[in-house]
Amino acid sequence: MEFKQALNEKINFINMHLNRYVPEKENYQSNIYRAMRYSLFAGGKRLRPVITIACCEIVGGNVNFAIPLACAIEMIHTYSLIHDDLPAMDNDDFRRGQLTNHKKFGEAIAILAGDALLNKAFEVAVDESIKNGVNLERAMKAISVIANASGSEGMIGGQVVDLEAENKEIDEQHLKYMHLHKTGALIIASAEAGAIIGGATEDELQALAEYSKNIGLAFQIQDDILDIEGDQEILGKPIGSDINNKKSTFVSLMGMDKSKAMVRDLTDKALDKLKIFPNREWFLAELANYLVNRRR
Amino acid sequence: MEFKQALNEKINFINMHLNRYVPEKENYQSNIYRAMRYSLFAGGKRLRPVITIACCEIVGGNVNFAIPLACAIEMIHTYSLIHDDLPAMDNDDFRRGQLTNHKKFGEAIAILAGDALLNKAFEVAVDESIKNGVNLERAMKAISVIANASGSEGMIGGQVVDLEAENKEIDEQHLKYMHLHKTGALIIASAEAGAIIGGATEDELQALAEYSKNIGLAFQIQDDILDIEGDQEILGKPIGSDINNKKSTFVSLMGMDKSKAMVRDLTDKALDKLKIFPNREWFLAELANYLVNRRR
Repeated sequence: MEFKQALNEKINFINMHLNRYVPEKENYQSNIYRAMRYSLFAGGKRLRPVITIACCEIVGGNVNFAIPLACAIEMIHTYSLIHDDLPAMDNDDFRRGQLTNHKKFGEAIAILAGDALLNKAFEVAVDESIKNGVNLERAMKAISVIANASGSEGMIGGQVVDLEAENKEIDEQHLKYMHLHKTGALIIASAEAGAIIGGATEDELQALAEYSKNIGLAFQIQDDILDIEGDQEILGKPIGSDINNKKSTFVSLMGMDKSKAMVRDLTDKALDKLKIFPNREWFLAELANYLVNRRR
Repeated sequence: MEFKQALNEKINFINMHLNRYVPEKENYQSNIYRAMRYSLFAGGKRLRPVITIACCEIVGGNVNFAIPLACAIEMIHTYSLIHDDLPAMDNDDFRRGQLTNHKKFGEAIAILAGDALLNKAFEVAVDESIKNGVNLERAMKAISVIANASGSEGMIGGQVVDLEAENKEIDEQHLKYMHLHKTGALIIASAEAGAIIGGATEDELQALAEYSKNIGLAFQIQDDILDIEGDQEILGKPIGSDINNKKSTFVSLMGMDKSKAMVRDLTDKALDKLKIFPNREWFLAELANYLVNRRR
């Protein structure tokens, strides 16, 4: 099968379940479901849940057991975007070419839709794991990994660091800390959750966490590169926003050449981690290459 | 033991563990911990976690297994207050006589502190249950109950209903729906989570859920009564705020006399549910009476 076809199959599988977990509802609070779904189905790349599914597959696990965790992670990612866009945070009016949640539904509902998506992530991860008759020790461990990655020592912590670094010069170590928490932690957890629920050995878990950490950082540096060299049309957002917002980026700190070299180096390291999965590594290997060559 | 002494012992036990689960931290994101702790230790009544502990006890369970769930519920309650107070929501400057979280730390940190507390609730419920070697089936079921009660079909749903009912006349059924979701759901879950982790039978679980539902509604009606008849000094907030905000309340819909009768009736119903726990019911019985006779 071609990579793009396999990727789209996974994305369709994820979307089908997201649609099932967060349906439209007609009750007194139907507005919250509209707001949750608006951002959940706004055309995200589904990178994180795809990693979860693929890491469950590569260790020989049942992907039906991974799908609630995969969807939970996508809900957490989505809520973080809704809250990041709020006037008190980045104050963005558009995301992926459409109005941000608070511009569409108002600030109060946007805050609550974010809360509801974070909450729903745990409802789904727990309830669906019980329903599926999953090994509960694996389920609890996987949910723990997700929860810790999205909290104050993970994604939220990174968001705080980002917020407080605004209009400030920060060094490379500080910037890496920020990205490792703000985006890296949840991407690593995506791999770990899939591996754990799939029954990975300690070595397999370790390798997939490292793979994910490397492609996560490469992904972020590539984002910084695209913010300068990207095509506004393809990207769906204005380029140069980091410079305009005086944000420290990998490119501003290390220069364009070193940044590009780092992306290649991190990708190579990621691919190297897949060597313990002979004949099964192709999808995750292609995914790593796809992420570096992407233009949006 | 006297009720007040037993209550304070439980509250101290809860505070000790909250302090352990959400410690001060010195790292790049130390501000988020300051903000989380500011609201978590702002003098809440700890009603919900006390119910969790007491319901675990009454069914003969180990309270050490209930404490992570109890604290998780208090964290969820606290985050909901932080987000409710935001300018886009109720826009309150003070709570319990001190500055609200966003007035103290700014809106961005307040939003993130709320997110972090909701997230931390699940980190603690999952991680500490694993550490304690709790029966995982019970733990997952209890966490499911909490997650569902705090989500879009529970507390957040109720908050949406409240928000959209502002400056609107709503009927008694609509008001009950709102309260049953906004505050009732989490109070009921407090009882259920304690009962489940304590190993309750189906009948015991049912009885404690009903007990909790009744005192939760009584508590809410008593709040509406105190907003009119309360003593501002003791209450720690201005009275008459519901009228000023043109909010539909039980008193505005049913009158003062019927509201007071309802509080008594609901309390009697709650006490009746405790009859299946002969010789063990005293604390929960006293708690029900304490809540109706409170003046703040």
